Parts: sequence; C-alpha cells; structure tokens
Amino acid sequence: MIRPIEDSDWPATWAIIEPVFRAGRTYVYSPEITEAKARSVWVNSPLATFVAEDKGEIIGTYYLKENQPGHGSHVCNCGYIVSEGARGKGIATAMCEHSQAEAAARGFRAMQYNLVVSTNEGAIRLWKKHGFKIVGTLPGAFRDPELGFVDAFVMFKQLGTEQGTDPEA
Amino acid sequence: MIRPIEDSDWPATWAIIEPVFRAGRTYVYSPEITEAKARSVWVNSPLATFVAEDKGEIIGTYYLKENQPGHGSHVCNCGYIVSEGARGKGIATAMCEHSQAEAAARGFRAMQYNLVVSTNEGAIRLWKKHGFKIVGTLPGAFRDPELGFVDAFVMFKQLGTEQGTDPEA
Repeated sequence: MIRPIEDSDWPATWAIIEPVFRAGRTYVYSPEITEAKARSVWVNSPLATFVAEDKGEIIGTYYLKENQPGHGSHVCNCGYIVSEGARGKGIATAMCEHSQAEAAARGFRAMQYNLVVSTNEGAIRLWKKHGFKIVGTLPGAFRDPELGFVDAFVMFKQLGTEQGTDPEA
Repeated sequence: MIRPIEDSDWPATWAIIEPVFRAGRTYVYSPEITEAKARSVWVNSPLATFVAEDKGEIIGTYYLKENQPGHGSHVCNCGYIVSEGARGKGIATAMCEHSQAEAAARGFRAMQYNLVVSTNEGAIRLWKKHGFKIVGTLPGAFRDPELGFVDAFVMFKQLGTEQGTDPEA
C-alpha cells in the first residue's frame, strides 16, 4: 500500500533514507546531512510525500514537488528510495507508477529527474522501462565518493501518454 | 564596472529585474511575483549577486549560486539581466565573463543553466559564443504567455577551459 506519510512515519522513513544519503552515491545531499535537514528536504519542502507499506512496515518512500516555479511549474520532480531489505520486489516500480498517477491527478504535464547519476544503472533501466528518456547529459556533474566526478543524466517523461511508449512518437 | 550588490542598489536592480519577471518570457518566476520574493530569489538565496554599473547607473545584474548541494555543489548556476536601455552594448558578455571568473575563483568546476527558453535566441547565441553547450532539451518545459508550451535547453560549460572552446575537445 502506498499512502501519504504521517508524522509518526518519520523515524521509519528516516531509517530508509539515512543509509542512502550517508552513502552519497545516488543523491547529491551531503553525507553529513542532519536528520532535521533531511526531513525538511524529503517531507516539508515537497508538495507531498508518500510511503510504501507492507504488513505494517515502511519499505519505501517518495516525494513529489514542482520542479520549477511559475512558468515551469507544470513539470514535477520526484525522488524515490526503497529500503535495502525490500529491493528487487517491484516497490520502486509501484512507487514510480503511483507518482505518475498522483502527478497527473494534480495537473502536472511532465515529470523530470534533474540529476540521475550515470552509475545508478538499475534506476536508469527502471525509469526507461517506465517511459522516461535521457534528454540531457551533465558532464562530471556528480562527485562520487569512490569514483570521483561522474556524469549525470536529465530524464524526462510527458505524463498522460501511454506508459512505456515514446511520448514523441 | 561589475561589483557586488549593496543594499542601497536594490531599487535600481529591481527596476531592471521587474519588467523581465513581469513579462514572463525568459524566467520561470510568476509574473505576479512580489518584490520581496524577487529580492529573496535574486539577492538573498544566491551565494553572491553583482551589478554592472556605468557612470553611476546600474545597467545589469547577475547572481551566482550552487546548482545542487553536496555532491553536486561543484557546479554553479547563474542568471543575468541587462536593463532594456543598455542592451546590445556587451553588458551580458561582460557579466558572463565576470561570472565565470568569479565561479572559478570560488572553486566551481562548471556552470549550468537549467532552463534556457528555446525562444530566447539572443541569449542562446551568446552563451554558445562563450563556450556553453546545449546538453539537454526539455520538451515543453516552459509555458510562454503568448506561445504556450515551448522547449527549454539545459546549457553547460566546464570552467577553467579556454573560453569559447569545446571543453570535450
């Protein structure tokens, strides 16, 4: 079940987010980010934040926000994290589909991921499967703690088009 | 002369920014943005804001900020506006060069423009002349008040490379 986050969900949500942020290999946030700042980024600043729950346990989370204000606000942005123990079970897929439906229901016309680290191959494969296209490559835009500067991709999908199809076709 | 903005420069700076924001054809900010919000966006949030001055008159302004936090914070972002009466006199060129020197001095490795409206041909030509490349195209990502949804470009330049040359060459 994917549902809006509640205040009481934060500790379990932070437990999923923290190791990903601390690793610093897929999200730009400093590995030294405080819990309060992370909560601000993930829960307070976005339009909406959701959790994926299975048998009372929180196993994933995503946020939805406007990618730009004003004349760019018809494009949204999302970020997703699945708990380490729940990976490979389709949770990211479920959240990706949920986020697109949620965004379309809120009137967004498209979804943009601004900085998908090029080494994050599993995520890239998944977003492509869901109809996202790499529309840009940012040379060396991500500083990986092990590999140094690596490229990042901008990925984009028009919403309201059939899932998995090329929106330009 | 290009110099850091001072508090007393705000009214003259706002007089340059306001018509551009109100027109809503090159920046995403809502045409109804308040002066306080504009000041927050242009002066308070960025790392630094500069003005171009000629004979005591402010004729241009730009801001410099980190484009992303943490592991993306080696890439900066800038925005530039030239007063209507001072266009075509090389002020944008001077500010673009100044911003690159300023960014390099602060340790940034690259500069990224996240949403260059595809109809803003003069700006695109100028950034290209200064070594920026279009690294991505965002389909319909800008809502132009006259033309409707138009594409926007992501433009990028590695700093510390010879101006105007291809950083990948």
